Amino acid sequence: MKETSSTIDAGIITALKAVVGDTGWKSDADDLEPHLTEWRGLYTGSSPLLLAPANAVEAAEIIRLCAEHSLAIVPQGGNSGLTGGAIPGLDSERPEILLSASRMRQVRAIDTDNFTITVEAGMVLADVQSIAAEHDLYFPLSLAAEGSCQIGGNISTNAGGTNVLRYGNTRDLVLGLEVVLADGSLYEGLRGLRKDNTGYDLKQLFIGAEGTLGFITAATLKLFPQPQSVATAWLAVSDPADAVQLYGESRRLMGDEMVAFELMGQLAIDMVVEHIPGCRNPLDTGPVWHVLAEYSSARAQVDLDEQLTAFLGNCLDSQLVSDGVLATSESQREAFWRVRHGISEAQKKAGASIKHDVAVPVSTMPEFLLAADKLIAAALPGVRPVSFGHLGDGNLHYNLSPPVDMAAEVFLSHGPALNTLIHTLANDMGGSFSAEHGIGYLKVGELARLKSPVAMTLMRQVKGALDPQGIMNPGKVLNSAG
Amino acid sequence: MKETSSTIDAGIITALKAVVGDTGWKSDADDLEPHLTEWRGLYTGSSPLLLAPANAVEAAEIIRLCAEHSLAIVPQGGNSGLTGGAIPGLDSERPEILLSASRMRQVRAIDTDNFTITVEAGMVLADVQSIAAEHDLYFPLSLAAEGSCQIGGNISTNAGGTNVLRYGNTRDLVLGLEVVLADGSLYEGLRGLRKDNTGYDLKQLFIGAEGTLGFITAATLKLFPQPQSVATAWLAVSDPADAVQLYGESRRLMGDEMVAFELMGQLAIDMVVEHIPGCRNPLDTGPVWHVLAEYSSARAQVDLDEQLTAFLGNCLDSQLVSDGVLATSESQREAFWRVRHGISEAQKKAGASIKHDVAVPVSTMPEFLLAADKLIAAALPGVRPVSFGHLGDGNLHYNLSPPVDMAAEVFLSHGPALNTLIHTLANDMGGSFSAEHGIGYLKVGELARLKSPVAMTLMRQVKGALDPQGIMNPGKVLNSAG
Repeated sequence: MKETSSTIDAGIITALKAVVGDTGWKSDADDLEPHLTEWRGLYTGSSPLLLAPANAVEAAEIIRLCAEHSLAIVPQGGNSGLTGGAIPGLDSERPEILLSASRMRQVRAIDTDNFTITVEAGMVLADVQSIAAEHDLYFPLSLAAEGSCQIGGNISTNAGGTNVLRYGNTRDLVLGLEVVLADGSLYEGLRGLRKDNTGYDLKQLFIGAEGTLGFITAATLKLFPQPQSVATAWLAVSDPADAVQLYGESRRLMGDEMVAFELMGQLAIDMVVEHIPGCRNPLDTGPVWHVLAEYSSARAQVDLDEQLTAFLGNCLDSQLVSDGVLATSESQREAFWRVRHGISEAQKKAGASIKHDVAVPVSTMPEFLLAADKLIAAALPGVRPVSFGHLGDGNLHYNLSPPVDMAAEVFLSHGPALNTLIHTLANDMGGSFSAEHGIGYLKVGELARLKSPVAMTLMRQVKGALDPQGIMNPGKVLNSAG
Repeated sequence: MKETSSTIDAGIITALKAVVGDTGWKSDADDLEPHLTEWRGLYTGSSPLLLAPANAVEAAEIIRLCAEHSLAIVPQGGNSGLTGGAIPGLDSERPEILLSASRMRQVRAIDTDNFTITVEAGMVLADVQSIAAEHDLYFPLSLAAEGSCQIGGNISTNAGGTNVLRYGNTRDLVLGLEVVLADGSLYEGLRGLRKDNTGYDLKQLFIGAEGTLGFITAATLKLFPQPQSVATAWLAVSDPADAVQLYGESRRLMGDEMVAFELMGQLAIDMVVEHIPGCRNPLDTGPVWHVLAEYSSARAQVDLDEQLTAFLGNCLDSQLVSDGVLATSESQREAFWRVRHGISEAQKKAGASIKHDVAVPVSTMPEFLLAADKLIAAALPGVRPVSFGHLGDGNLHYNLSPPVDMAAEVFLSHGPALNTLIHTLANDMGGSFSAEHGIGYLKVGELARLKSPVAMTLMRQVKGALDPQGIMNPGKVLNSAG
């Protein structure tokens, strides 16, 4: 029943190309190359054919044909994922068709009174943002790859980003989906409703499923009013426990206006100051923990500033915060964020790094940091943790730099062992070993290792029910063993 | 394979009773009676045995035994649902065991720094609210039945209520779930994380599934800071289109502080004034559409009042609002809400009523109202629509009172035909025929009629995968035909 040979019958190829027409496919090696490599260079795969349908009807016909011939399909958006989830042909002899959303980029509808927009899956995230802005509305999903990632990929990976604290993950922004299922049928669920309890909420199945259950072709998304004012503070606290307390005070006293609450260790700041031109430590303090907190409001700038100033005054009086500065201009605000966003690059310039994308309950973060530092110091004396992350989301990029004078190759050879330690610790503390980036191909083994057998069985049951032939993104999220 | 006789083998009954011990079961007709009737009297069912496990382990053992013998199970919380979803034995010869969550009411954990609480499924919603309040935190889910409904039932039905506009539906408040699956295995997913992309988000399967996929035993829920101030306004607008515009302005200028935005037609207000003692129209205007808008904030009362006063001043100046009054005391605020909450009771006192719980995109509500009024007037001349609802959620209780002088029985005989018209209209306008109340037993036929074949197939695939024997709440949501 399955097509296991390494080539696909020429007649099928011809039929697939006919669906999309001359401008809708690529099979030349040079044309395919950018689609076959994970952008950090982690993986390079292979595929005999990329198909880019112009619309959902073409996508459905492609998948129907593939299902008929048991051909595997790998959905791809902007190919900016960090776990290899969109790369075909990684561990299978079976040829995998690349199915690209990139020609599907229409706005289907914008409904300003309903605060919703309906767009096709291939629209680049930045375009969704700017179309919303043209209508004086705001689409809050924002992340580093926003100039190239596509909304269909954001939904398939339940992307996080910098505004999760206030607006939620991508899952929270989706009201309706249109999806081609693994048998080629089209699920038309593009509704813009805040309340709808008519049976199972089917869209939830496809959000975050990384293309293993269907191919998303369009989505109805929530929009929000444009914030009228933004206020940003850089603060020093003595340790992560004080940062957690400050976060709680900030939620209580600043309400839903808090947009970001980022925590950074001193080493992260030192690296940025050393390696990123034009960046300086916003504070003149000694070694501390740094907090970057941002607030936005529908109110006037003066009102927000006044409220934040009063709040921070109290925090200084009570010595919860030892020092702090408010951005008094947009350029100062940008300078704060350049420091925060410079950490990854600084760490790269400083040498090799071993990265983690974990989450724990916010309350547990101080304990996690202590335990993690201890574990890795025992495993590799001298290793230097570069801790930073979205404290308000419980999401920590617990990255490691090598002991001084250790060669990169030697250091990186400890990667798997250190990953195992950190992932296990996060999991044991009620946390997640992949907060934002998903499973893809990279973390399939960790998923099987750390999820309970009951959870794994449930996932396989869902996969088996929706994609019984296993043609949708095989070997991603779940391995093909079960 | 299936137990199709109308009685259960005595040995199995004995084994099931032994799991819960002497205080954990009921089989006497008088004891069972309150559990067998839908609280409005819509349905009365039957069951040979109610089992109330003390914990998840007992619940798992019960379901394992039932699965072994293909015995059907109907989960029940506070039995306050409006669609018969928790009533056993409605259309089957097969005996159905009632599985009650009511003895499972422990607080498993409260984590104030993480803004989460973990409670067992049988905890009454009002108790969740008050435990949060004891810790100076806020659980926003609030609805009429909060003194008796249980959190497990709220999650199973994805309850809405009065705070959806700001805090979302129950789905948005759940971070983790513990669920006994249809084979008796225990899914342990009680994590309190804001970000976790490790495979399929399994909890989503059980939220809103009305007990057809598993039995929820505990949940980790989001908590929020207690609001520090509340401001409430009663406003007159000339028509629903102006109400939609006012809603948009309110979102833009009052931000996330808007908690409720309720729309009521003049007839609804007139009925309340006539039938509910002590209620009066807050405004001295002629026939208008009424808006009750409420705001809350982390800021001081004086700040919120000032902002709302300025906003409403602008709305009066632009004549978007023709008249309005702000509640200047808690008792005035309560008086406003008594009018709003009195509508259902007033309509009942005024005679028979035919009710609908529909949702449409907010932008479409004016058009829906016009079209619905026209349809029902043609179907039953003289019928009087009592329109009110949560405009901000797109959720309308489009209820009908009989033509003057028409007997209740005659009027109610038109119910099915009028329901069909209204449900079809909502569906055709991109809306929902059941916004808040779910499907249960009452709307199984409407689900099959109005959902697409693709959506129905997907639901059956999920049901078949997770509950292959069909023992979990059979005949609810999905009929047993497919």
